[in-house]
Amino acid sequence: LVERELTRVISAGTLADMNLLDSSRHNYIVALYKDKKQLGLACVDHTTGEFSVAQFEHMDLLLDELSRINPSELLISDEQKESFPGTHPTLYYDGYTFLPSTAIPSLLNHFRVHSLDGFGCGEMTAALGASGAVLHYLSYQLRRPTEHLRRISVRATENAVLIDQASQRNLDLVDSRGGVKLSLLGTLDRTSTPMGARKLRDWLLHPLCDLGRLQARQDMIAALLQEPFLMSKLRDSLKNVRDMERLTGRISQGAGNARDLQALASSLDRIPALRDDLESLPGGGEMLESIRSRMGRFDELVDLLQRALVDEPPVTIKEGGIIREGYHAGLDELRLASRDGKAWLAQLQEKERKRTGIDSLKIRFNNVFGYYIEVTKSHYDKVPPDYQRKQTLVNAERFVTPELKQMENTILGADERSRQVEYEQFLLLREEVGHHIDGIQITADAMADLDVLLGLAEIAQQYQYCRPVLDDSMTLHIVNGRHPVIEQSLSGDVFVPNDSFLEPEENRLILLTGPNMAGKSTYIRQVALITLMAQIGSYVPAEAAHVGLVDRIFCRVGASDDLARGQSTFMVEMSETSLILNNATERSLIILDEIGRGTATFDGLSIAWAVAEYLHDELKSRTLFATHYHELTDLARSRTGVQNYNVAVREWKEEIVFLRKIVQGAADKSYGIQVARLAGMPAVIVDRAKAILSHLEMNSTRPRKKERS
Amino acid sequence: LVERELTRVISAGTLADMNLLDSSRHNYIVALYKDKKQLGLACVDHTTGEFSVAQFEHMDLLLDELSRINPSELLISDEQKESFPGTHPTLYYDGYTFLPSTAIPSLLNHFRVHSLDGFGCGEMTAALGASGAVLHYLSYQLRRPTEHLRRISVRATENAVLIDQASQRNLDLVDSRGGVKLSLLGTLDRTSTPMGARKLRDWLLHPLCDLGRLQARQDMIAALLQEPFLMSKLRDSLKNVRDMERLTGRISQGAGNARDLQALASSLDRIPALRDDLESLPGGGEMLESIRSRMGRFDELVDLLQRALVDEPPVTIKEGGIIREGYHAGLDELRLASRDGKAWLAQLQEKERKRTGIDSLKIRFNNVFGYYIEVTKSHYDKVPPDYQRKQTLVNAERFVTPELKQMENTILGADERSRQVEYEQFLLLREEVGHHIDGIQITADAMADLDVLLGLAEIAQQYQYCRPVLDDSMTLHIVNGRHPVIEQSLSGDVFVPNDSFLEPEENRLILLTGPNMAGKSTYIRQVALITLMAQIGSYVPAEAAHVGLVDRIFCRVGASDDLARGQSTFMVEMSETSLILNNATERSLIILDEIGRGTATFDGLSIAWAVAEYLHDELKSRTLFATHYHELTDLARSRTGVQNYNVAVREWKEEIVFLRKIVQGAADKSYGIQVARLAGMPAVIVDRAKAILSHLEMNSTRPRKKERS
Repeated sequence: LVERELTRVISAGTLADMNLLDSSRHNYIVALYKDKKQLGLACVDHTTGEFSVAQFEHMDLLLDELSRINPSELLISDEQKESFPGTHPTLYYDGYTFLPSTAIPSLLNHFRVHSLDGFGCGEMTAALGASGAVLHYLSYQLRRPTEHLRRISVRATENAVLIDQASQRNLDLVDSRGGVKLSLLGTLDRTSTPMGARKLRDWLLHPLCDLGRLQARQDMIAALLQEPFLMSKLRDSLKNVRDMERLTGRISQGAGNARDLQALASSLDRIPALRDDLESLPGGGEMLESIRSRMGRFDELVDLLQRALVDEPPVTIKEGGIIREGYHAGLDELRLASRDGKAWLAQLQEKERKRTGIDSLKIRFNNVFGYYIEVTKSHYDKVPPDYQRKQTLVNAERFVTPELKQMENTILGADERSRQVEYEQFLLLREEVGHHIDGIQITADAMADLDVLLGLAEIAQQYQYCRPVLDDSMTLHIVNGRHPVIEQSLSGDVFVPNDSFLEPEENRLILLTGPNMAGKSTYIRQVALITLMAQIGSYVPAEAAHVGLVDRIFCRVGASDDLARGQSTFMVEMSETSLILNNATERSLIILDEIGRGTATFDGLSIAWAVAEYLHDELKSRTLFATHYHELTDLARSRTGVQNYNVAVREWKEEIVFLRKIVQGAADKSYGIQVARLAGMPAVIVDRAKAILSHLEMNSTRPRKKERS
Repeated sequence: LVERELTRVISAGTLADMNLLDSSRHNYIVALYKDKKQLGLACVDHTTGEFSVAQFEHMDLLLDELSRINPSELLISDEQKESFPGTHPTLYYDGYTFLPSTAIPSLLNHFRVHSLDGFGCGEMTAALGASGAVLHYLSYQLRRPTEHLRRISVRATENAVLIDQASQRNLDLVDSRGGVKLSLLGTLDRTSTPMGARKLRDWLLHPLCDLGRLQARQDMIAALLQEPFLMSKLRDSLKNVRDMERLTGRISQGAGNARDLQALASSLDRIPALRDDLESLPGGGEMLESIRSRMGRFDELVDLLQRALVDEPPVTIKEGGIIREGYHAGLDELRLASRDGKAWLAQLQEKERKRTGIDSLKIRFNNVFGYYIEVTKSHYDKVPPDYQRKQTLVNAERFVTPELKQMENTILGADERSRQVEYEQFLLLREEVGHHIDGIQITADAMADLDVLLGLAEIAQQYQYCRPVLDDSMTLHIVNGRHPVIEQSLSGDVFVPNDSFLEPEENRLILLTGPNMAGKSTYIRQVALITLMAQIGSYVPAEAAHVGLVDRIFCRVGASDDLARGQSTFMVEMSETSLILNNATERSLIILDEIGRGTATFDGLSIAWAVAEYLHDELKSRTLFATHYHELTDLARSRTGVQNYNVAVREWKEEIVFLRKIVQGAADKSYGIQVARLAGMPAVIVDRAKAILSHLEMNSTRPRKKERS
């Protein structure tokens, strides 16, 4: 008997082996895994070696992506059968292989790397769980070779520009070392409501590459800019709108006090006026139409709340003072009883003064024994016998009468009960608001859109931004562009504008050299920020701009290490660079600031050189590459798409004057030692460094330029 | 008539010109300036060119420093005459010259720098105001040359080790990229109380160079380690102590509720037991004595609060439920009235059932009309005529009687008044606590000291830390030291310990080379952290350690830029380096990680080289210098105090194995390209980079070593 070993298994996702496959379409095996927060997806085309991952917060987004992928096979953990709907041919696979604690080490081992950060998915735990399972399935279940799966890429979700964490941080999108104020968010935020501020943040973190939606936003901004008076009227109205999302959030959770209801009522009360104003805005296009159609009508609810609530209700909800007079008959009665009682006390005081002849007799109240009659010492003899003595003070005595006590009980009882009635009525009102939550939330979202667009129009007006021309070309052309954040933070100084021109043929890789401090980093980030602003639909800080939509924006700049996670500075830098090289496409915009530092000179130069070549020859992404390796400028001779630029400076005596102007050509000096002097380095060190430098320069040979391999 | 120009003016601070000066002591001109938060001091010795600044938060600290300086002349703004006591000969000088907006530009101009960060005082606005004034006084009032004032240094405040902001950040002292947990603070924090946690933070940010105080702390830790059982008993007691500082803070501001009082009482209640336990601790020395003597006695206050407050009072202070039964007679009466009333209602229900023969008759309460009698439909015929109908429901009717209404008023009135009495009593208690605030705060501070020391003892025990030998020598000798933070964050792996030896003669500048990722940064920071721990009085993660006290710890590692403040990456790096070079002394410990990156290769190498020479030849500080410029290792040949070390690695096939062991000698390779591969760089780029590298190496000449100038 010959024992036959199982050599391979055929499955729907690996039909290629059998030549049974329609080669015109991908043949994907997809695994799904859910952790506490995220839904992870891993997708492998075994025929091409494509291995990609994605994560989603909501099931509907995952299902969208899944229908776009249309997998041949779907793997789901046998412990998560209930978590995913079985829309595609589904295989329940060993749950153990999905556990991130199993999956991640096996992925590190498979790709022979120390960290998955270089693929851009180091923190995507759910997706990595799915990846581990799909890899296990291929190797152990189907017994297929997996050596050709050489990298993981992160799937760009349709219509959204993906900006990875490191790039977000490096571009100071929503926060910066100097706080939110010096971030792009802080700079562009002219919103009037908290909903608007959150929405703007969301737009900045999720720019679009959907031409139609972007142009709709631009149209709305253009329409607003035509009507400056209406614009400021709308902004004034919005300023009175409170945080409706948070208010409804509290109310729908059964929290929220009368002030919240009042705030909601006065916010909703603005909507008819806002709607009318928007009616009179010409040319707002689809976006205006969408905003108007989402703004609900809440006249009855507003009326009810305004009739029921006093103008300034207290924070507490059980202490009364909430419900307006005339709203609830029972409550009005109780209040009347309390008021009558107090009037009766005043009359009683008059009556008793007359009866006893004690003009100084007073009816007073304290917390220990309620209402009492106080008589000063000199009048003791006039006190009538029906007064019951309660307390003796140095100069006075205090008495009560049965009549007084009875009225006291009436007053206190009425106060107590009216508080309770108010509380009940308040609860009824809150419940009523609860029935309108959905409509209010949709309205709030529309207000947020309006608020963001108004803010963008405002800033466009204030800083003379232009409307960029958007299309699906690969051109990026900016005339006299400025850095939006720095432009605003300069007080007094004028920001020097610069042009940028990138296109796929002769201008796809811009090598930028020039001295330290000259403004290289500012310039290359400015290009990224302008592109990003264009892709949220905003106007941009430039005289004119033409932006061929990009699918991703990558930005790598100086890194810091992360020792506790076992990553050296250089490792962080290489991981971020690898992320770009593994994920960028021809449609991406890449900003690289000084790569290859943090290792020995020749190692760093070699890496920078190889990366530049790869970007130019293979990826063809539009790239701005700032570097101090002047050797790299030789690339322009052998590569048609590489252009050299530098930042102009002028030397004047021992000083350098920064002109901040980008000009064609390669720089020849770095002025590092001059910068050290400007930074306060002791003169003796500066002089010695100069001596060493001139010696080094005398003895050096420049690395010979490389021919295209 | 010849017009004679005023050429110079003699003042007490510039007597040197007249040879009238005792040369054995400094002759200082000091200016003081106060801004919103800080008291600034600038101090110039015109004879030596020394120019130093300091800032203080409290006037007494400033006066201490002033008396140490003993200035010959004191300048104060004529607009701040009242702000400073006239302890020294004082000149009121033009207030305009003190304004930071005037002073800072004139200082930048004088020192010909772009930023004062390189002197370490860029943010010390108050001190810079004073500096501007003193400079103005010298040049314009006294008409003295000021060219020899070439730098500003920041004065080390007596007995405190100064750690500048950048070094704090670079050492991850109290925070890190990975959060507080991965900082030194997070690692060492085993405190049981919030006061202790804050105190530990304070100690870490202000290490001492006061041998006596440090040894007192060590003695206390040693004593605790001898008594593990007592130690855990003390820690258990402290766990029940609440945040007394914040509690007293709230209470003294007239905030704070009954829970706060209760928490304070139960915290104070632990003190006698803690004091007794401390009595039985042998050998705690001065520190123990100091802690014991500061712990106050609060028996009466605790007794009062415990008698007055219920065990679990509510959050609100006006709703009652705070005061214990039996504490206040009036309150007890009111409560009795309410209870009696409720008992009376039960009796009434019984009575009415019998009288009417309706067994299902019930007395109930609602918020709208209080207490009522409810009778179900089937019994309507039995309702007596004295019942007044209030409400008709589907199956029942509700009635009241005058008798019922009267009792209702009694009950509700009593409830209302008892709440008011409780509130008054609570206010009295809070006032009483207010009288003990001072003593409680002193006690809380002693508890904080105890808590920190217990925590340090705990961690010393858990991780086998040793007691470092401290003295005033210049030696730093660590046997098998570990990085405290990383040691704890490694799960499973064992941290490889390393020795360190620095002393002023032959081991003052350690040049550390070696591949990326090998652990250079970890090692050099570990030395700084161990030194710092020794100088808060803690035990340290090593087998043995001998720490000659340092006056400052500087740490410069990879920087990120700060574009919004107009600082490029390289400018930040140079500013931080200049700060060190301008402020370090022979007693300082300096950690330099990769300086000279971020500019052209030769510029960077020249600067690194000149800095290393200056550190060795002039400053003579104990320095650990990690670098990728292998060329620097040549320095060891010409400089006796320079030693080369490297981090061992072993190559194995294409892989590198990191041994994490520091060994003598210079490294020869950086393995940058291997690290790029480990970071996930595409293989085609890695291969190309290798080819470029071997070409570069073939064609390079190594910069010739420099002779000592």
